[in-house]
Amino acid sequence: MEATYIVIMAGGSGTRFWPASRARRPKQFLSITGPRPMIEETYLRVAPLVEDSRILIVTNREHAPLVQEIFSGRAVRILVEPEGRNTAPCIGLAAWHVQREAADAVLIAVPSDHFVSDEEAFRRALQAAAALVRAGGIATLGITPTRPETGYGYILKGAACEPVLGQAVYRAERFVEKPDLETARRYVISRQYLWNSGIFAFTTSTILREIRKHLPRLAEALARLDEGARHGAYEQTLEAVYGQVEAISIDYGIMEKTQEPIYVLPVTFGWNDVGSWQAVHQLRARDHDAARNLTLGDAVLIDVSDSLIYSQTGRLVAVLGLEGVMIVDTPDVLLVGDLARSQDVRQFPERLRREGREELC
Amino acid sequence: MEATYIVIMAGGSGTRFWPASRARRPKQFLSITGPRPMIEETYLRVAPLVEDSRILIVTNREHAPLVQEIFSGRAVRILVEPEGRNTAPCIGLAAWHVQREAADAVLIAVPSDHFVSDEEAFRRALQAAAALVRAGGIATLGITPTRPETGYGYILKGAACEPVLGQAVYRAERFVEKPDLETARRYVISRQYLWNSGIFAFTTSTILREIRKHLPRLAEALARLDEGARHGAYEQTLEAVYGQVEAISIDYGIMEKTQEPIYVLPVTFGWNDVGSWQAVHQLRARDHDAARNLTLGDAVLIDVSDSLIYSQTGRLVAVLGLEGVMIVDTPDVLLVGDLARSQDVRQFPERLRREGREELC
Repeated sequence: MEATYIVIMAGGSGTRFWPASRARRPKQFLSITGPRPMIEETYLRVAPLVEDSRILIVTNREHAPLVQEIFSGRAVRILVEPEGRNTAPCIGLAAWHVQREAADAVLIAVPSDHFVSDEEAFRRALQAAAALVRAGGIATLGITPTRPETGYGYILKGAACEPVLGQAVYRAERFVEKPDLETARRYVISRQYLWNSGIFAFTTSTILREIRKHLPRLAEALARLDEGARHGAYEQTLEAVYGQVEAISIDYGIMEKTQEPIYVLPVTFGWNDVGSWQAVHQLRARDHDAARNLTLGDAVLIDVSDSLIYSQTGRLVAVLGLEGVMIVDTPDVLLVGDLARSQDVRQFPERLRREGREELC
Repeated sequence: MEATYIVIMAGGSGTRFWPASRARRPKQFLSITGPRPMIEETYLRVAPLVEDSRILIVTNREHAPLVQEIFSGRAVRILVEPEGRNTAPCIGLAAWHVQREAADAVLIAVPSDHFVSDEEAFRRALQAAAALVRAGGIATLGITPTRPETGYGYILKGAACEPVLGQAVYRAERFVEKPDLETARRYVISRQYLWNSGIFAFTTSTILREIRKHLPRLAEALARLDEGARHGAYEQTLEAVYGQVEAISIDYGIMEKTQEPIYVLPVTFGWNDVGSWQAVHQLRARDHDAARNLTLGDAVLIDVSDSLIYSQTGRLVAVLGLEGVMIVDTPDVLLVGDLARSQDVRQFPERLRREGREELC
């Protein structure tokens, strides 16, 4: 695609995949959705669209060495934030870099830790989004819901627009927060709501203008970065200004406030934000054994069903007579639990932190 | 006690505590009933009765180094069988050694891998058994059943005899095999049956005479050992003869055939042959937390009950939202299973052996 850049947002942290993920190695660095780390699978998914030099991976200082290791020998560009400040600053920083080398390029921003089942369909949708916003506005992909998921945000479709490259396009009427179950059911039945994928497209001039309108501290920081870079002091300036910018998501910081037209492109491919071990178990149904177990590592199962076994250690995991459990085996921590309660896994690092056992968090 | 020797029978092997126990490190070497290996707890339980030099520990060549390590610096005597041949040869070999140094001493033979809740009561019963058999006959302890256990053999009480040192004594009418549940219930209700503890007392002359009557190959081997020892060739003779002796238990080989009087001494202390992880969980009720979990190692439990967590690795074990599970964490194998199915654990080493993974068995 001409003058298009892709931003892989890799600043996420989280504890829902503890103990496999840690503060020092969050989810996007785990090989849980396939044979490679999620961030690398994300890269491979977008790589056919643009040359490597137009792929920007935004990470923070703590995780930069992991990113550099995974992408060593590739021409992708790694932008290092002094610290993670959520998605709006991440996109602002990427837009700042891109506008310095290309006049009004299109940016496509994608999270580094999501799962997509149909990569071809995914890329076609991104191409349509890029083509659409070249003339202005903001585009986002909306996933057609397949269940009343309460863990995702939703987007209400508005008026239909002209299709682009065969892709249907609507105005986005409204972004809504994670609903309760009853509301989610209504949304799904109505066929008017789509899941908010967190994937956005816009030109650099659009997004930088919106930042100036709605995120003044981020805009100021980017202006000072212009100044610093002119004097060969990019790093020091970034360090000095980044702690002051609004730590806010692109959804809250821009989408809810903008007067620009926002388009939503409904897509139907399988998609998952991979929010828990249970999600991993569900989305990898193709890798299940006959009793619906997902086994990643050396394991012997006797009378076990609907379970997830993930071993990072190479040890043999023997399981006997259980249903619906998760077993996550790491060098210093072993987790065994009810798979249906995988959302509660975060309670362990919280408790360990209170007990002063940071090294296990 | 005068002229009394204690034989700790440590030749057992088994796979019910896999993966903590292995072919090379069976149950008696595990610290599962208390802070020390079971064989050492057995020793400490009998040590107040006789001086160390009258305690004989019978093991086999494979496990002798483990025994030597545990008892280094102690004056106990370690008898090494070339290979385990069940309890009758083990007792025969011990009796052979004892009769060479003491005229008609009493032998008390105890398994190395059982649990006893009241050590004082246990020792009083052994003293009574020793006093009783000094005049002839064979004595065994019979545990008063507390539940219709189908995993133990039973002994039917016969006529009451004179109490010895305040301990009730009966003739043993009959030894019966592990019953089915209905039969076990009848036994318990009848109050006429006791659990077969596998603990026996007799003089060396009694047991050696019984061996000559009922186990001719063992008797022949011991006679050749006399001959070999006379020529300073004990080791070579033992090596040459031991493979030929009857591999049979003392119960089958002597108790079922003898014409000697057999006495059973009913005792009421807590006793368990520790046949499974579930048994360990049950017998260590005093070490349970408020939700009836037994935790041996570093663990954090959230909403967990009636479970056993045993870690040999020092890793943290985190458990979430489970009931009645066992987690056994060893350096090269992790077992997670339904605690109620702990009898089936042996299926893993069986399967692994078929798959050529001997090192994990």
